[in-house]
Amino acid sequence: MSLHSDRLFPADPHTREIARKLYQSVKALPIISPHGHTDPSWFANNEPFENPAALLVQPDHYVLRMLFSQGVSMEELGIKRKDGGAVETDPRKVWQRFAEHYYLFRGTPSRMWLDHVFFEVFGLTEALTKESADRYFDHIQGCLQKPEFLPRALFERFNIELIATTESPLDDLRHHQTIQNSDWKGRVITAFRPDPVIDPEFEGFADNVKKLGEITGIEIKTFDDYLNALRQRRDYFKRFGATSTDHGHPTAKTEDLSSEDKHQLFSVVIGGSATPEQAETFRAQMLTEMALMSLDDGLVMQLHPGCYRNHNEDLFTAFGRDKGADIPVQTEYVQALRPLLNKVGSDPRFSMIVFTLDETSYSRELAPLAGHYPALKVGPAWWFHDSPEGMRRYREQITETAGFYNTVGFNDDTRAFLSIPARHDVARRMDCAFLAQLVAEHRLGEDEAMELAHDLSYRLAKEAYKL
Amino acid sequence: MSLHSDRLFPADPHTREIARKLYQSVKALPIISPHGHTDPSWFANNEPFENPAALLVQPDHYVLRMLFSQGVSMEELGIKRKDGGAVETDPRKVWQRFAEHYYLFRGTPSRMWLDHVFFEVFGLTEALTKESADRYFDHIQGCLQKPEFLPRALFERFNIELIATTESPLDDLRHHQTIQNSDWKGRVITAFRPDPVIDPEFEGFADNVKKLGEITGIEIKTFDDYLNALRQRRDYFKRFGATSTDHGHPTAKTEDLSSEDKHQLFSVVIGGSATPEQAETFRAQMLTEMALMSLDDGLVMQLHPGCYRNHNEDLFTAFGRDKGADIPVQTEYVQALRPLLNKVGSDPRFSMIVFTLDETSYSRELAPLAGHYPALKVGPAWWFHDSPEGMRRYREQITETAGFYNTVGFNDDTRAFLSIPARHDVARRMDCAFLAQLVAEHRLGEDEAMELAHDLSYRLAKEAYKL
Amino acid sequence: MSLHSDRLFPADPHTREIARKLYQSVKALPIISPHGHTDPSWFANNEPFENPAALLVQPDHYVLRMLFSQGVSMEELGIKRKDGGAVETDPRKVWQRFAEHYYLFRGTPSRMWLDHVFFEVFGLTEALTKESADRYFDHIQGCLQKPEFLPRALFERFNIELIATTESPLDDLRHHQTIQNSDWKGRVITAFRPDPVIDPEFEGFADNVKKLGEITGIEIKTFDDYLNALRQRRDYFKRFGATSTDHGHPTAKTEDLSSEDKHQLFSVVIGGSATPEQAETFRAQMLTEMALMSLDDGLVMQLHPGCYRNHNEDLFTAFGRDKGADIPVQTEYVQALRPLLNKVGSDPRFSMIVFTLDETSYSRELAPLAGHYPALKVGPAWWFHDSPEGMRRYREQITETAGFYNTVGFNDDTRAFLSIPARHDVARRMDCAFLAQLVAEHRLGEDEAMELAHDLSYRLAKEAYKL
Repeated sequence: MSLHSDRLFPADPHTREIARKLYQSVKALPIISPHGHTDPSWFANNEPFENPAALLVQPDHYVLRMLFSQGVSMEELGIKRKDGGAVETDPRKVWQRFAEHYYLFRGTPSRMWLDHVFFEVFGLTEALTKESADRYFDHIQGCLQKPEFLPRALFERFNIELIATTESPLDDLRHHQTIQNSDWKGRVITAFRPDPVIDPEFEGFADNVKKLGEITGIEIKTFDDYLNALRQRRDYFKRFGATSTDHGHPTAKTEDLSSEDKHQLFSVVIGGSATPEQAETFRAQMLTEMALMSLDDGLVMQLHPGCYRNHNEDLFTAFGRDKGADIPVQTEYVQALRPLLNKVGSDPRFSMIVFTLDETSYSRELAPLAGHYPALKVGPAWWFHDSPEGMRRYREQITETAGFYNTVGFNDDTRAFLSIPARHDVARRMDCAFLAQLVAEHRLGEDEAMELAHDLSYRLAKEAYKL
Repeated sequence: MSLHSDRLFPADPHTREIARKLYQSVKALPIISPHGHTDPSWFANNEPFENPAALLVQPDHYVLRMLFSQGVSMEELGIKRKDGGAVETDPRKVWQRFAEHYYLFRGTPSRMWLDHVFFEVFGLTEALTKESADRYFDHIQGCLQKPEFLPRALFERFNIELIATTESPLDDLRHHQTIQNSDWKGRVITAFRPDPVIDPEFEGFADNVKKLGEITGIEIKTFDDYLNALRQRRDYFKRFGATSTDHGHPTAKTEDLSSEDKHQLFSVVIGGSATPEQAETFRAQMLTEMALMSLDDGLVMQLHPGCYRNHNEDLFTAFGRDKGADIPVQTEYVQALRPLLNKVGSDPRFSMIVFTLDETSYSRELAPLAGHYPALKVGPAWWFHDSPEGMRRYREQITETAGFYNTVGFNDDTRAFLSIPARHDVARRMDCAFLAQLVAEHRLGEDEAMELAHDLSYRLAKEAYKL
Repeated sequence: MSLHSDRLFPADPHTREIARKLYQSVKALPIISPHGHTDPSWFANNEPFENPAALLVQPDHYVLRMLFSQGVSMEELGIKRKDGGAVETDPRKVWQRFAEHYYLFRGTPSRMWLDHVFFEVFGLTEALTKESADRYFDHIQGCLQKPEFLPRALFERFNIELIATTESPLDDLRHHQTIQNSDWKGRVITAFRPDPVIDPEFEGFADNVKKLGEITGIEIKTFDDYLNALRQRRDYFKRFGATSTDHGHPTAKTEDLSSEDKHQLFSVVIGGSATPEQAETFRAQMLTEMALMSLDDGLVMQLHPGCYRNHNEDLFTAFGRDKGADIPVQTEYVQALRPLLNKVGSDPRFSMIVFTLDETSYSRELAPLAGHYPALKVGPAWWFHDSPEGMRRYREQITETAGFYNTVGFNDDTRAFLSIPARHDVARRMDCAFLAQLVAEHRLGEDEAMELAHDLSYRLAKEAYKL
């Protein structure tokens, strides 16, 4: 195994030469990671990662889904059962199972990310197979004990200028506090993800709102109380660097209800008797409320809609969320976002970044919307489409209508900390490859492409997230 | 700035060589523009265009949307407010704002079209930037005063064999009359766009139908009266060269109601009390009625569905239509077109050209439908998809099922007169690039590709529109 | 005309060289044809094919649809009218009409398949045109009389290791019996397609169920009787080699009703009074029932949903099914398959292969579902998308999420027996081209690509269909 320096560049020699030149100019830029799911306790406590399986296999839903799809059970991978039932406890055995099935990832981005981690982070040069599994395990395990593999050391080695984590309004942000209090200079900020207190169908919603009241010292009786509590938490998050909110709704629906309707709906929802339609309307209205708060506090709104969560019920019951059983669904934006966009979409104080798992919306809905509304930008290719092919489709379907400047650079959106440089590297390479094609086809000057490569790799993310 | 002679051709040298050869054989062919929105008064009156901003910025909704999306207001661009409020009145300042933001168009078709206009039409060779803005303005302004930049001179210089404009049935076609009466030989024909008198939700529908009665001298009391009036206007349009009708409905829905139901529905609609569902049914039925008239008068029917018009309400209120706030929506054709196609889709006297803004329908719906029904053809990549990438997707998704001969060549569909050669040039280059790839992959003989290049650039448009 | 040895390979010389090497390693592999519609009587009776028109034109719905779309009537092509009305009876004239219009197929897969048949099977080297039509007819007609063009001889010459036909549960499989009883060694197996006795909206459904009772000797009064009869027929089909069932439902909807609801619904359905919704629910439940039977008998379930059959009513009335008037519709899988997948999707005894005519589901729904559920695999690019472009889109949109090993190799799915080698050859070339690109972009080792080329051409089909 080795990572070829020309990987992902177009095969045509002339185009490849242009891509190389563009990539040379951006490959060493610091990483801006404005949206992701790393655990702030890593950077707060700076303790060694446990073992190769716990670090690279068990928390990675891309890996779990692929192995599960080919008959490897969650138990064999050592994923904890909620009922405490027996699962594999030996990380070496989990690692071996992973290694035996590593060929399944051929052609997938996971393969690229993992190879990058093996080679660049751990210096491994043989391919991962059943035969090399033990050597891999021992080598990685050895590394993890060394100071240069502690989270903060890796953060620095990865040249991360800034990373954002994502927390619930109920989180006390103690780890961020610890980081702030420490003398470590790494910039780790939070982002405000209010789904648990905004979505009436979230597990424990009523309790969550109650807890929100306790934390804020506001007795939440009316919709106004509730909004005030949320406003207060947004302020609290800003103290820990937050520049954005994030919303993981089932759809992109927004609403702009009358004051009376809002208050009535809140009573129903807080009373626990909301129908699915009312829950949907409440989430829709709350997006607009969050947008209105953004006018005041300047937090950038992110919307991540369109996923059927926990599609496999037995798996969810036994093992819980995020085990690779979330499936995208068709998602509509034009009607859905209209109430919100008509209210604040042309307000210079507002900024909204929309993502999609439904690629049909790129050219049909999102590029036209982002190519018109000043507040709206299209987030990068997301999740299942965070892949070389997904990135190419994204640029090919967005650029013609929205250009480059209504997009926001790259998000790694990951909890797989070690893969962050790999993911940004894939994004930079694919953007350079796309730009190189425009240059080779005489649609763009090389100087313009050079500027754009820098913008897409670095500047746009910083600007869009106000970092 | 210069326009490279190989622009848009594939980077692979061998494929590029084939593309070059194909393009050489078609680049000088006359332009057939069978569907568009140029203003016939230009050719009737042959007066100089006003200034660079009024010519190239203010009427171009592609330009307006992009600038607006990045925070430039309509007022700053000198777009008239309906309420008479203050807007920029100095065209030079409008032009400067445009120039400052010209980098936003990188990677978009607008950039290609505009560069083509600057270089080919005006002979400008430096790039448009903030710095060159004034020189651009002065140079273009100077050109516009010269006889060789008058509309008819440009028409001839552009090698336009024929251009179709689009008018409402309520238009008296006076400009077309002037052209007919003149000794100028340029072929400018009209096309019949009856939305204002067919769509119950069109602004002023009832008044429009009343005016239709006045113009035709038919007292419109029954559905039959109404159809007769429309029939008469179609005949009138044919006298000014019309060979086609055009329909801009929200959906592709068609109906085939009983005679009784039609007459009843007309009473409701003309009475002004139609529900949205009834309005939709009426439009649907009227498509079928128009198709039936085509059996007699031979007008080719064009359908342009699937756009959410005026999505931004405040913008619409302040500035009106066509300011870049129209957004495509998902569009269904298989169920929608069935009533019409089952009635006339196999009739050799009928011909229908369907367009889409929902590219998912290319391979799933439109190519299969056009690959079966004799009357149906697929119109070229439209509006947001009138781009190099859009054209490539179009050919790649249509050809496998419908071949080339169920398509109709290129439509520029534009009011931006000066960009017409640029747009046809992009289409010819992209078709040659696609054909070159088929030749390079040994799927098509070079002689066949040569014939197809000519068909796609010239012959199919002429035939499909009966020109 | 000649078939270039590099056809379909990428134009870039280096990538093409890799594609060549990969293809060399798989081009001679035997053909596994696990799903198709050839007529078993050909192999049972081994009689000469009748004439070129009856062999290559009249049964090919791809050919019929294209000619019809350009104004050639079914009558001119000699397709029998149900009312016995006059149609062309001279096969030579039918062939001439086909030849005159052969240029229509430029750029389509039919053109590639037919050229392959002409050149490889019949040794023809001139292009098919109006002028060469008679020579073609005479030459092919001459060949068909020779022993080496009898069905069994072609089967062997085509290097077919196994072919599956598709039969109704009401079929007595007499031709398969004849083949079994013969001393011919060709492996021709059946597949179980129960639509006629499962779909309440199938023509003659009630009679079909009655006949099912007669064939099985089970008096079908209750839902359990009905299931038993189906179970018995599945067993019968297994005796003739069946390893799979196939289901051609309008949608992918599945259900998991209570026992009581199932029995009640069956009474309604068998009583002939089912509403369209009840018919849909019954089909949905029956997919789950068939899946449950698969747990016991091991038959692999295939689902082919999403086609609007017989869209052209007049054509259907006059000429019947399969004349090229079936049109794909938008198809949803995530909600639709959930009941079935939650019941058996993680059961190691179950295996299901899902196809789609709605390519938007590749990256959004099918790859994520197949990339999670152990039982689910994605069938190859189907029907309208069984084309070079369709295959490339398939790999580009499936692989990133589901990898290669949740796909099942190629299906020719055809009744056009002579085109089977051509179709497999296109698939092998396109897979090698895709793999070559991954190698050229340094995303895959050449050794891995070599193994994958073999898997995709041969091994995966055998494994997925348990052959």
